Amino acid sequence: MKRIAYLGLGIMGSRMAANLLKAGYDVTVWNRNPESCKPLVEQGATQAQTPAKAVENAEAIVYCLANDNAVEEVVFGQDGILSNVRSGQIGIDMSTVHPDTSRRQAAAYAEKQVEFLDAPVFGSKNESAAGGLWIVVGGKRDVFEQVKPILEPLSETIHYLGDTGKGTSMKLIGNSIVATQIQALGEAMVLATKAGLNPKDVLDVLHVVDFRSPIFDGMGKMLVERNFTPSFALKHMLKDANLIARFAQDLNSPTPAAAIVRETIKAAVNQGWGEENASALIKALELEAAVTVQ
Amino acid sequence: MKRIAYLGLGIMGSRMAANLLKAGYDVTVWNRNPESCKPLVEQGATQAQTPAKAVENAEAIVYCLANDNAVEEVVFGQDGILSNVRSGQIGIDMSTVHPDTSRRQAAAYAEKQVEFLDAPVFGSKNESAAGGLWIVVGGKRDVFEQVKPILEPLSETIHYLGDTGKGTSMKLIGNSIVATQIQALGEAMVLATKAGLNPKDVLDVLHVVDFRSPIFDGMGKMLVERNFTPSFALKHMLKDANLIARFAQDLNSPTPAAAIVRETIKAAVNQGWGEENASALIKALELEAAVTVQ
Amino acid sequence: MKRIAYLGLGIMGSRMAANLLKAGYDVTVWNRNPESCKPLVEQGATQAQTPAKAVENAEAIVYCLANDNAVEEVVFGQDGILSNVRSGQIGIDMSTVHPDTSRRQAAAYAEKQVEFLDAPVFGSKNESAAGGLWIVVGGKRDVFEQVKPILEPLSETIHYLGDTGKGTSMKLIGNSIVATQIQALGEAMVLATKAGLNPKDVLDVLHVVDFRSPIFDGMGKMLVERNFTPSFALKHMLKDANLIARFAQDLNSPTPAAAIVRETIKAAVNQGWGEENASALIKALELEAAVTVQ
Amino acid sequence: MKRIAYLGLGIMGSRMAANLLKAGYDVTVWNRNPESCKPLVEQGATQAQTPAKAVENAEAIVYCLANDNAVEEVVFGQDGILSNVRSGQIGIDMSTVHPDTSRRQAAAYAEKQVEFLDAPVFGSKNESAAGGLWIVVGGKRDVFEQVKPILEPLSETIHYLGDTGKGTSMKLIGNSIVATQIQALGEAMVLATKAGLNPKDVLDVLHVVDFRSPIFDGMGKMLVERNFTPSFALKHMLKDANLIARFAQDLNSPTPAAAIVRETIKAAVNQGWGEENASALIKALELEAAVTVQ
Repeated sequence: MKRIAYLGLGIMGSRMAANLLKAGYDVTVWNRNPESCKPLVEQGATQAQTPAKAVENAEAIVYCLANDNAVEEVVFGQDGILSNVRSGQIGIDMSTVHPDTSRRQAAAYAEKQVEFLDAPVFGSKNESAAGGLWIVVGGKRDVFEQVKPILEPLSETIHYLGDTGKGTSMKLIGNSIVATQIQALGEAMVLATKAGLNPKDVLDVLHVVDFRSPIFDGMGKMLVERNFTPSFALKHMLKDANLIARFAQDLNSPTPAAAIVRETIKAAVNQGWGEENASALIKALELEAAVTVQ
Repeated sequence: MKRIAYLGLGIMGSRMAANLLKAGYDVTVWNRNPESCKPLVEQGATQAQTPAKAVENAEAIVYCLANDNAVEEVVFGQDGILSNVRSGQIGIDMSTVHPDTSRRQAAAYAEKQVEFLDAPVFGSKNESAAGGLWIVVGGKRDVFEQVKPILEPLSETIHYLGDTGKGTSMKLIGNSIVATQIQALGEAMVLATKAGLNPKDVLDVLHVVDFRSPIFDGMGKMLVERNFTPSFALKHMLKDANLIARFAQDLNSPTPAAAIVRETIKAAVNQGWGEENASALIKALELEAAVTVQ
Repeated sequence: MKRIAYLGLGIMGSRMAANLLKAGYDVTVWNRNPESCKPLVEQGATQAQTPAKAVENAEAIVYCLANDNAVEEVVFGQDGILSNVRSGQIGIDMSTVHPDTSRRQAAAYAEKQVEFLDAPVFGSKNESAAGGLWIVVGGKRDVFEQVKPILEPLSETIHYLGDTGKGTSMKLIGNSIVATQIQALGEAMVLATKAGLNPKDVLDVLHVVDFRSPIFDGMGKMLVERNFTPSFALKHMLKDANLIARFAQDLNSPTPAAAIVRETIKAAVNQGWGEENASALIKALELEAAVTVQ
Repeated sequence: MKRIAYLGLGIMGSRMAANLLKAGYDVTVWNRNPESCKPLVEQGATQAQTPAKAVENAEAIVYCLANDNAVEEVVFGQDGILSNVRSGQIGIDMSTVHPDTSRRQAAAYAEKQVEFLDAPVFGSKNESAAGGLWIVVGGKRDVFEQVKPILEPLSETIHYLGDTGKGTSMKLIGNSIVATQIQALGEAMVLATKAGLNPKDVLDVLHVVDFRSPIFDGMGKMLVERNFTPSFALKHMLKDANLIARFAQDLNSPTPAAAIVRETIKAAVNQGWGEENASALIKALELEAAVTVQ
């Protein structure tokens, strides 16, 4: 398996495609805005005009798109992937979408004898650049084994979790934890500030105790430096929180803390902070507390 | 500084006192139930009949008690510490109590020219046994520097955070994060179970991703093994959640997620799980979801 | 305007259609299960075999269906309303659906020169039987004025609220308040029981004070009598809570209390109480409190 | 029973004392700031310099104070009520305090052979002026029967609920419902505004439906008129929310919605709106939604 079609060259995709090129794959790229293809063409990629064209000679078709709508369009739309696939190919959706979107794709691909994996990733800009993503995979195990070599240059770990939709299920569940952790950090930092603690001291403690998490280090540092440059934008965290809410609704699974966190994210986006980093949700807590962590 | 009075020999205290003995200190112990003094006497401690007697010749007076009421009694009560202290001694309260209780002690000690530090600890049975606690300290910095050698055999890290009450403030804030993390883990594991994921696979993923936390590993393992043997009992987490709520109330600091987590802890204690490990709060989420994580 | 097609004869529909007959309208009825048409035919209705047939000669087409899917099928489906409408007719959707479903219908009807109103109702079995519903209407005002005489025999009040979707928006907003009121009543009654108050005495007080509400009287009485016979089933309240959550999501409107109430409803449905009355959500609170209100 | 000591002449107390005078009672008044006694003296009251003096010749001792601290001082403090009571008198605390404060008073009075009732009131400025309060009473039934004639000129209804603390328990439970209703109204109005509904139309609907409540009428009207003149100040609602949280904590009773509402009240008070009417909590929801209801 040498020939890969890589579709969508955003923050994540451009870095992932570059890593596939570096790993020696023969990569055909497509992006809605063709400008973004340039740097990859310079690194050896072939550029295609449409998703349909891109997948023509590919063995594997890989994409990590912004949301369910983007998948809808690139896969099911006009000149989309499905319009030009053929038996034997493998589709790999690395986007964070609802498990139903994974299952709908699997079914549509299956009608054309094309295999499908949902393989979303944890990690953002830095991890995709470094080939250090954490990939979680759903689909047939033998298909997974077949494409594993493609996933390895992109990732630090790869977990196979079961049939179609198990990858995206795991991703949503994980993102639910992240959001709640950020909220916990935010409530803690706001309370600490009101209590007269030095926020940096609090982060020092959180760095060592037995409930430490890289989230507290990373998001905490950005918070006290008042740096909200996005590596994962708040508006995307809201999108995911909305997906999680629907996913928990489908399974009628009670998630009271996640539900409350979603409301905080809403409030932060309403203040106009959607393009900032996810940690900007903490600014909504600061607003409610009438205090700034610093 | 060689002579220490160590008061209260519960799960934490007995192990901390033993570590002070091992470190070569001359330790006088007292415990409400005198039986618990035996093993420490065998290790070289002197036994006292009352807190007042215990502190008589001590340079430092150390205690890590169950709650504000226990501190009230041992410090302010009949034959309590305050009835027999003298100028030059240093009191070190390592209990998890409300910062007001720290400040009230500091004031009472000060009237007798006794210095005071609030120095609560993160970590539970294993960390206290191993001398691997994470200590957070409030009080005068020079007093802290004086007693640091006593704290070192007990701990992996020691953070000085500012004046009286800053140690206990940090402790409550940290415990608030822990409780929310356990809730996040619980909501995630319940949702994962409903979604047909294997809980052990989920824990494997949570072990590597960039929001990993020792909490997810430790509490997660106990959960899937259905082992709720307490190292930190749920009833103590409820006690702390109640302290946190009051602390946040005093500062009028909004903590919506922590507030909701407290309600879940209440529900779990109402089911009779207060003596089980803190992770038993997840069983309240299982109850609401009518599902068992396994 | 004399000829009405009335589609869907459930708990609400059968009573509403009967009231239209009583008011002298010429009513053609259809129901998925044709058995339910019998009593209405006995009262003078004509029975049709499909929605398409039912609307053939109607001036107004009225329906109050279970949910968005039912509307989808009856309006847009095979032999559905849209397959047989003609210019000059007026469609009146009295179902509780997402405002987008109202707008989608309005657009589809408009293509066939058919007018459309969303006119959902507050009230349940008793109010529909008594012609005492509270109707809230969205759509063109002149169309509303035209059909007002049809709505009058069904209702105690009719409020015109603006263009298409305003009726269903109001309905969802109202139902959100109801659900939160039931939760408030439940939390209060559980707390009162734990405090040793007699629940009936509490209801007596709630009957007179300046925050009294018919909800507290009605739901409260059923609660203390342990009578959960549905007039509005809990599973429908969950359906509505899910609609409200999506509606608030679309507008990114923070609704923290409503979000938490939805989680309680989930828990109650998970216990198997979905077919009981909406007040059965209080049983989820009793479960969490390990107490029974009585 | 003709001679009444009435202590505390705030918004509520001044109106209640006036009604007792009007009813023909012989009233001795005391207020921390003696200025406030003047209008009552003009209406026939006798003025006392201290609580102790005020109660000297009284048969019934009545007070409706701001909070637990005020009760502490007026009852237990220097020159307080307890310093001068005698066998046969009856104390009637109409304040909203924790039931423990009621029980502590009952015990202290009992030591002096003085009877005690907790008899807090629902209603605020207007109701106290009009003698239209809703009184809820705890204590011995025969004592209640004895003082009923005194309560009647103050109230529209009087409910006897059981032994000491049952009145204050009922009061806190009721206030919990009020706060949740205001939150429900706020979430609804904010959502309605975002949905393009006219807030006044929404209030019209809420005025008639089967979950209507005088709260929606009263608070709703003030909201759309942007009138936040206090009849019951937000800071007092926060005080009560804090009492309710402690009361629910004492009984370990889960109150998830009330807990979330308390967080909203905190946020509103943090914005500086504590002196405005309780309905100003809705402004915190507006802030989170970045919208104004009007």
